[in-house]
Amino acid sequence: MKSELKHRITVARGLQKADLVLKGGSLVNVFSGEIYRTDIAISGGKIAGLGKYDGSKVIDLSSKFILPGFIDSHVHIESSMLTPAEFARAALPYGTTAVIADPHEIANVLGKAGIRYMLSASEGLPLDFYFMLPSCVPTTSLETSGAHLTAADLLPFLKQRRVLGLAEMMNYPGVLLGKPDVLRKLNAFSHTMIDGHAPGLSGNDLSAYAGAGISSDHECTTADEARRKVRHGMTVFVREGSAAKDLEALLPAVTQANARFFTLATDDFQPGDLKRGSIDQLVKKAVRLGLDPIIAVQMATINTAQHFGLQHKGAVLPGYDADMVVVDDLKNFTVEKVFKFGKLVAEGGKCIASVKSKDHEQTRGTIRTGPIKIKDILLKAKTNRARVIELIPNQIETKCSTMPVTVQGGHVLSDTEKDVLKLLVIERHQFTGNRGFGLIKGLGLKAGALAATVAHDSHNIITAGITDEDILLAVSRVQKIQGGLVVANNGKVMAEIPLPIAGLMSDKSLAFVVKRLAEIDAAVKRLGVTIVHPFGILSFMALPVIPELKLTDRGLVDVKQFKLVDLFV
Amino acid sequence: MKSELKHRITVARGLQKADLVLKGGSLVNVFSGEIYRTDIAISGGKIAGLGKYDGSKVIDLSSKFILPGFIDSHVHIESSMLTPAEFARAALPYGTTAVIADPHEIANVLGKAGIRYMLSASEGLPLDFYFMLPSCVPTTSLETSGAHLTAADLLPFLKQRRVLGLAEMMNYPGVLLGKPDVLRKLNAFSHTMIDGHAPGLSGNDLSAYAGAGISSDHECTTADEARRKVRHGMTVFVREGSAAKDLEALLPAVTQANARFFTLATDDFQPGDLKRGSIDQLVKKAVRLGLDPIIAVQMATINTAQHFGLQHKGAVLPGYDADMVVVDDLKNFTVEKVFKFGKLVAEGGKCIASVKSKDHEQTRGTIRTGPIKIKDILLKAKTNRARVIELIPNQIETKCSTMPVTVQGGHVLSDTEKDVLKLLVIERHQFTGNRGFGLIKGLGLKAGALAATVAHDSHNIITAGITDEDILLAVSRVQKIQGGLVVANNGKVMAEIPLPIAGLMSDKSLAFVVKRLAEIDAAVKRLGVTIVHPFGILSFMALPVIPELKLTDRGLVDVKQFKLVDLFV
Repeated sequence: MKSELKHRITVARGLQKADLVLKGGSLVNVFSGEIYRTDIAISGGKIAGLGKYDGSKVIDLSSKFILPGFIDSHVHIESSMLTPAEFARAALPYGTTAVIADPHEIANVLGKAGIRYMLSASEGLPLDFYFMLPSCVPTTSLETSGAHLTAADLLPFLKQRRVLGLAEMMNYPGVLLGKPDVLRKLNAFSHTMIDGHAPGLSGNDLSAYAGAGISSDHECTTADEARRKVRHGMTVFVREGSAAKDLEALLPAVTQANARFFTLATDDFQPGDLKRGSIDQLVKKAVRLGLDPIIAVQMATINTAQHFGLQHKGAVLPGYDADMVVVDDLKNFTVEKVFKFGKLVAEGGKCIASVKSKDHEQTRGTIRTGPIKIKDILLKAKTNRARVIELIPNQIETKCSTMPVTVQGGHVLSDTEKDVLKLLVIERHQFTGNRGFGLIKGLGLKAGALAATVAHDSHNIITAGITDEDILLAVSRVQKIQGGLVVANNGKVMAEIPLPIAGLMSDKSLAFVVKRLAEIDAAVKRLGVTIVHPFGILSFMALPVIPELKLTDRGLVDVKQFKLVDLFV
Repeated sequence: MKSELKHRITVARGLQKADLVLKGGSLVNVFSGEIYRTDIAISGGKIAGLGKYDGSKVIDLSSKFILPGFIDSHVHIESSMLTPAEFARAALPYGTTAVIADPHEIANVLGKAGIRYMLSASEGLPLDFYFMLPSCVPTTSLETSGAHLTAADLLPFLKQRRVLGLAEMMNYPGVLLGKPDVLRKLNAFSHTMIDGHAPGLSGNDLSAYAGAGISSDHECTTADEARRKVRHGMTVFVREGSAAKDLEALLPAVTQANARFFTLATDDFQPGDLKRGSIDQLVKKAVRLGLDPIIAVQMATINTAQHFGLQHKGAVLPGYDADMVVVDDLKNFTVEKVFKFGKLVAEGGKCIASVKSKDHEQTRGTIRTGPIKIKDILLKAKTNRARVIELIPNQIETKCSTMPVTVQGGHVLSDTEKDVLKLLVIERHQFTGNRGFGLIKGLGLKAGALAATVAHDSHNIITAGITDEDILLAVSRVQKIQGGLVVANNGKVMAEIPLPIAGLMSDKSLAFVVKRLAEIDAAVKRLGVTIVHPFGILSFMALPVIPELKLTDRGLVDVKQFKLVDLFV
């Protein structure tokens, strides 16, 4: 360490050759807000100097631009269905060299062990994984998750260098009502960063929420909301994920005077989107929409580093980690080269770094149900009128409708005519045997069944289908492959992707995951479904914080009343 | 703590009355970069909310502006000659509610005990004292100081909440040459903030210095130098002290794009200046010179807080400490009220907070010399030609001249005709008996003698005078009062200020110190001196890092050659 510093000083002074010198390119200097030509000298993984340099190795970057490596200020790795290693392999070619991850999904399945896995699986990779600790596990009291994390559970993780604080405090009603468990967490983490999640909050309630020490928000959907939150001292993470896309709406709020308090985040980026890009897509889109490229780059780099206190990150400047992105242009650019700690890790869209996956044995075996038989999934009709979860096109909010149901032999059946299907959530963490029954309208499935272990946020098994036999087959298959997504029809599995890591993530590559998901989409389409990514929609049907009607392993939830309600009326 | 948060949330939501509400004023919002009217609600010392509020107490601030409390990003408290408590009492009325202090002077006298004193004496005051640890004690190897502080000595202080890192690394040649003791310090503090001090550094050397992890500089004297340093990743502390005034020269470097990397600092503010103001003077001057008032306020508040990672400081926003300044205008303003943790601590230029001085017994008794007799201060003439320290008007740099000296009875005498006086530096830390003899031209003293224990950076006794008897009297008096400044003439003490705390600081109020200094200035003037603050000039004659010729207890130093040289030639 000491000799490394000494060597870097010698290199910086031009007395010894740098390990590597980038020549001829234009640096986007996120401190001075300028773009200019300079040599960039690298020594021991750090930027040694800007100016004129010789190197053992020289790369000519004439007509190129050099930016700091991108930092994603808020992401759930689990949404990529990839291990941290495979995520790194996928994101590096797009210039993302650091992420602030919230392992909320895996923590809902595996609790502390899930967080420990994410920490160990992301150690030593050529992409920096920082973590915020999941603040809301379980998300609600109306469902069964795999863990219950208290302030006392979370605090010890703070000793780890890469753990920065408390992740998105989604339970904003709990903050406003001063719930003891929420306050305990806020107090315990008051000396660290605490991320927020408070869609639409305004007025005095926004003061209360921000004033509780919550210093960011990534749920703004209008420029006014973003302005309001910055005015209340929050850094706004502009999110442009696979589902929620806020960039265009929020950009008008960004001014020269307040830009330092805006960053970029993907939040949830599905495998198909990750295949096409990462934070680079957000930077490009922002510039295309008219944002000053320097500000766009600052939002993707130094602003996040400064918000989270990441020393020596987010800038190509002496003493900073040599995490750099080379692009051909500042507008509609292509990431040509990516350097991490001064090493070329990606080029021409391909990861060329050695990325080693870690052991994930401890994340397997999370489908903890007893055997499930056909009688377990039969739905006895108490009346012939029921509450139905009605899908709203392109939204994860639903409507609560009541309608007559189709009954045969005393049991409720799916009805393809009315497009009202049986929906089940089967508890899979604690062998409780809990099963929640519901009905869903609008999925469009004409035959077969779907089953999945990705079902926010408790990630119990969710399944919908036409015949009980296919439902049972899909569920049994999900059990057998220890989690994943399965499409079954006519007694056969048509398509599937195993997600053995906590029932959430594959242990395979992005290419494998994308291929399998495409097969699944095709299979579901063949079964009559026209909506895009039906498994994505299905995964939110168990999330009882999004109105109006949702289903957990404990039953139907009227979200507005925040209580369990009867299926039958 | 927990119930405090709960209460603040309740207050923020408007369900309970705030402790205090400021109404009708315009807030300078350093996050959004806007100025607008809003109520400001305070609960438990923190900002609870912005918006519409009721309070148990309401203060009408119509037509006033509310700014965050000012933060001085770099100051040596010792230059004020005051204890931290008295410094707080003096600076609070001008809106300074936090300082980042470098106890370099007292550490040169008392080492770790000096740092400990500053920490304990500043604890619990209504002004936040943060500390950077002196990096260069002693300043050079050519003098005797009271301590030698290594990385191992300094590191344990990092455990203290208010210690933020390593103070100005003045030994930039040591950094560039990779000196082992310097590298040890830089490595030991690489995970903290390290302040810089590198006047004029540029090119590859600037890369080397910044790249060593040094992230600020307060020695820029031109806009180009400031631009250069920001381009190299340094935050520029714009210094406007009693002697060095850089604000006007540096402001042209500040742009909307880079302003966040500029802050304000006083560095060395003498008692007379502190009587007239603090950081408020810098803000005003910056605005007068044309800087956007919002940027000026950001430089005095949030920029410093963000640079040093001071959570919940530097903004009037929910959850932030309620440190606030009320002014009548944003241009040539007067600080009317100052709040610290929501309490009114100063009003109409007067400190009204309870400010308790701490015990400072451990800082006394630092004049550790044996008895000094007339024979000890006689200067035997080896030749009749000598090197003379020649003052340059209004500078602390000197010229090295050689000239004939006046000799009588084998001893060199002061010569008022030529204005060449005897100058002595007497070691006062370790009873070494070291005495350095020199000659100084340009002081203008016609009779009597001056002696002082403030003599940068080792703070040995420095004395100059006409007759050996008056020199001895002045020195003896300084010994007797355990440090201070003394003017003697004709066998009598004409004026003095005792500085019993390490020989550097008074234990009295600012008013007392200013009065005594005025008496001293008047006395020195009566003795023929026309230069302003001759004791100030004298205090730099022992600093062997400022060219060309200086005097330490070990003898004359040729600063450019950085070695001891003979007095006689």
